[in-house]
Amino acid sequence: MKKKNKKVNAAIIIIGNEILSGRTLDINTQFLSKWLNNLGVEVAEVRTIADKEQLIVKCVNELRSKYKYVFTSGGIGPTHDDITSKSIAKAFKVKYDYNKEAYTILKNYYSPGEFSEGRKKMARMPNKTSLIYNPSSGAPGFIIENVYCLPGVPSILQSMVGSLNNKIIGGKKILSETISLKTVESEIAKSLESIQKKFNDVEIGSYPFFRQGNIGVSIVLRSTENKQIKKCIEQIKIFVENRKIKIIKTH
Amino acid sequence: MKKKNKKVNAAIIIIGNEILSGRTLDINTQFLSKWLNNLGVEVAEVRTIADKEQLIVKCVNELRSKYKYVFTSGGIGPTHDDITSKSIAKAFKVKYDYNKEAYTILKNYYSPGEFSEGRKKMARMPNKTSLIYNPSSGAPGFIIENVYCLPGVPSILQSMVGSLNNKIIGGKKILSETISLKTVESEIAKSLESIQKKFNDVEIGSYPFFRQGNIGVSIVLRSTENKQIKKCIEQIKIFVENRKIKIIKTH
Repeated sequence: MKKKNKKVNAAIIIIGNEILSGRTLDINTQFLSKWLNNLGVEVAEVRTIADKEQLIVKCVNELRSKYKYVFTSGGIGPTHDDITSKSIAKAFKVKYDYNKEAYTILKNYYSPGEFSEGRKKMARMPNKTSLIYNPSSGAPGFIIENVYCLPGVPSILQSMVGSLNNKIIGGKKILSETISLKTVESEIAKSLESIQKKFNDVEIGSYPFFRQGNIGVSIVLRSTENKQIKKCIEQIKIFVENRKIKIIKTH
Repeated sequence: MKKKNKKVNAAIIIIGNEILSGRTLDINTQFLSKWLNNLGVEVAEVRTIADKEQLIVKCVNELRSKYKYVFTSGGIGPTHDDITSKSIAKAFKVKYDYNKEAYTILKNYYSPGEFSEGRKKMARMPNKTSLIYNPSSGAPGFIIENVYCLPGVPSILQSMVGSLNNKIIGGKKILSETISLKTVESEIAKSLESIQKKFNDVEIGSYPFFRQGNIGVSIVLRSTENKQIKKCIEQIKIFVENRKIKIIKTH
């Protein structure tokens, strides 16, 4: 794919043994990817790693030098297995200490006498961070350089990203259109391939589906150039019509 | 965690732009992780990458030297964006060509005249592979050294892994027990931490939940040693009782 337009990319790091063991289904990747796409940021890579300091340090350092933005999810809570904040301080070689603003937020959030050691731990962060406010449960996330640290609980994470909309500077928005056809992939593989060869700036994906007894293929066209997507769809419609394949829907 | 028992590990590579764009929720990681756990294999890392040859080559080569097993999901279908097989041939520096057995399987699977170019493509694989049979849609996956290549469609992937049960040699099975408590994480953080310090061979995870208006914390204990899990649970029950925290369930 030629880089005609300045692209902005990001990586996501999902931190948590519960994802790797299969106990918990990760839905944060999908949420963050959709949100970033809307801001013109393409998620280039996702890594899921265990709650281990050396793994977090290595992964964060590798990805923050490679991508414009890095988002982490998980490991910023109050318990012993929440080691993301401390590990990220190590990655950046800065102190891990109380963030005054986070401390004040948490102190005000909890009733007097309820601001326990565990809760105080959530105010400990790498130095030189700015906060990501948390409208649903008090404890903030943080930003250090290009790394954005969010919690693992999906509802809390989702409530927090809105405040970042102004901070993430995306490239041209990635547009997407889908045509769903009543066919099988192998029937259209050759035609699609020849269209893909003509359109360097449209990424054409082909995804079979099996829904409610119906089989079909969704062709997904993604590009920053709406005109090119439209041209591509025209060409798809030509071979679809010639071959008498039914279009289920265009969306 | 001390390595008292021989652990067997694995990595999963999810290949597909549709996961990175957020269009599709990846459920293969959770399925494969649970299945591998049951076989005594710990998933140490998951990477989600785009359908790009150089990325696949690099990722496969990095992870296959690092982990005992590597599983890939996605990109072995008939269309132009299915480039996993070809890329893995490059990673191993072997030829990418028709696999005779796969070709025969596919030829027999389709009616005469329906064995199109796209379908023939699914018989092309790296040399020196053995097949992973596909009871649901014909096209096999393949094994090359320690790399196991599976399709991206969850129902098809799920139908195929059963045949691998004899091929994957796991270590001691990782056992898991969960105690769910009516409390919040910060209330139990200190007690849990001190228990974790006493049990090097049990991994204690703490996960808050918000279900049907109830809040609580699930404490997950994972270890290859059942006795140690039981001892750990006893200690948790002591502080839980002392602090009058309600046990919602043990499972």
